[in-house]
Amino acid sequence: MALAAEPQLSITLVGDPDVVHAELARHDVRGLAIGVAPSEGKITDDEHPVSALRRKPRSSIVVATQLVKHGDADLVVSMGPTGASMATAVMGIGLLEGLERPCIGGNFLGLSPNITLVDLGSNVDCRPSLLLSFAAMGVAFSRRLLNIDNPRVALLSVGEEAAKGNRQVQESHAVFNDSYLNFVGNVEGMDFFNDKADVIVCDGFIGNILIKFTEGFGSALRPYLENHLATLLPPDQLDRLADALWDTTNKARTMGGPLFGLDGLVLVGHGSAGPEGVAGAIDTGILSHRIDLVEAFRQELSELQRTGPLER
Amino acid sequence: MALAAEPQLSITLVGDPDVVHAELARHDVRGLAIGVAPSEGKITDDEHPVSALRRKPRSSIVVATQLVKHGDADLVVSMGPTGASMATAVMGIGLLEGLERPCIGGNFLGLSPNITLVDLGSNVDCRPSLLLSFAAMGVAFSRRLLNIDNPRVALLSVGEEAAKGNRQVQESHAVFNDSYLNFVGNVEGMDFFNDKADVIVCDGFIGNILIKFTEGFGSALRPYLENHLATLLPPDQLDRLADALWDTTNKARTMGGPLFGLDGLVLVGHGSAGPEGVAGAIDTGILSHRIDLVEAFRQELSELQRTGPLER
Repeated sequence: MALAAEPQLSITLVGDPDVVHAELARHDVRGLAIGVAPSEGKITDDEHPVSALRRKPRSSIVVATQLVKHGDADLVVSMGPTGASMATAVMGIGLLEGLERPCIGGNFLGLSPNITLVDLGSNVDCRPSLLLSFAAMGVAFSRRLLNIDNPRVALLSVGEEAAKGNRQVQESHAVFNDSYLNFVGNVEGMDFFNDKADVIVCDGFIGNILIKFTEGFGSALRPYLENHLATLLPPDQLDRLADALWDTTNKARTMGGPLFGLDGLVLVGHGSAGPEGVAGAIDTGILSHRIDLVEAFRQELSELQRTGPLER
Repeated sequence: MALAAEPQLSITLVGDPDVVHAELARHDVRGLAIGVAPSEGKITDDEHPVSALRRKPRSSIVVATQLVKHGDADLVVSMGPTGASMATAVMGIGLLEGLERPCIGGNFLGLSPNITLVDLGSNVDCRPSLLLSFAAMGVAFSRRLLNIDNPRVALLSVGEEAAKGNRQVQESHAVFNDSYLNFVGNVEGMDFFNDKADVIVCDGFIGNILIKFTEGFGSALRPYLENHLATLLPPDQLDRLADALWDTTNKARTMGGPLFGLDGLVLVGHGSAGPEGVAGAIDTGILSHRIDLVEAFRQELSELQRTGPLER
């Protein structure tokens, strides 16, 4: 509700009208720019996105995405399944030119706030040309949102040498080398914590494992710190440290992230985020809109096409 | 040197005689069971293992492995390149029956000391049957070294459902389901910190990234803790906490690990380990010998063959 009080910000809540109005009745919303757009049902995590969209053509994500498509909203924020948000956006808003699939990217690691990782978890088994287009959008994100001038791009692998890595990375290495990107070669797992690259590229299988591993790590540090510091720090200090560490390892949960590659702005939040996570995703959306992230993606993909069309 | 003073333990140092004797001259080794086996040169990280072995047939790893092959040593500990240790061992000692390639496995995460991960970094692009044989050896390791009765085996993926994951994991899921293993399905990145599985299986590309990511994470926590706790903890307490966290995220560096699948015991230590890391790898080797880990691998692989021969 706090966000809705900001000047020049108007929020449309999309959902089953009964549910939305019941929730609104529990708050003092007088004078706030909150609208309601009715929808029917929602898509859940255990449904296949595309078939669920066919079965539920009036579900909340579809209606919300239509608002963006028709210019009635500048961006959509969804805390529902990423796959459904992505499929709806591809069908409703469309992909940027030169792109085969969208992806998720961004910073997932508070300890290294300047590193952008693509793909964070939407595409497994990617071909080199797809990884290259993800990298270009990572560069746009790094440049426009993190103010890094000429972002260094690296492939995540198991050794620095070009010959190190699985087949996907070895093939991608050659493709990246031939591209206009500021490609600095392969980096390894520890290089997320060194200043070797600004945009690290992997497929969504590895990205998803890394982001969830990091979240779990941050949660596991709480009992660890309690064991080691219980006699040394007062409980409130200990709590604050564990909370800070959790935040730094759960950036995706607290900030949400824009989908990369759509012709409109779609933010996805973490499915298990609380109110602060929803607010964080909205904040990230407002920032992405202000800096015109979609235009940055478009320019970078156009540069990629100009300097060497993506093979399909 | 402390280890060499243990009763019933005799150590043979393998290396260029001048170097080894110069080093021994710097210590008081009277009464210690230390022998020297002369070798010529060593294989470095930037050489291709197999061609380096051809060029340097008397290098330290080759001579050391021969000691095991001929029964003159119970185990070999190498801090050199893993690839060279592995190639030498395969050629010199040979693989256990039913196995196509060896791998590296073990516990890499002090926060979850009961989880065994295979493959930690030796094989990329693995077929399901290879992952299955690695899993069987992970079970042997878990049972024999960690005393877990009926280890739960899981595939590392991006969702619990059988259909989630890249092609490798989806295909492996079916193969694992049909095996005699106590297969509990897929786990995700955060499940390294939950009690969902005892043996987690991935290919060496992902294993290597995870282990190095964890090492980097542990190192990055030191400045983080210094920033957050400098005014709250005395420097020595802070140091102790950062050291403990580093240890728990650098298990491979401090303990070394046995190669999985050879007809003899070969321990590899971390290339950048210090004296404690070397001692740790020797300790792990002594334990592996005492519990006859090689025999445990052999039995588990034989069970795998008995219950459904590996397709090649």
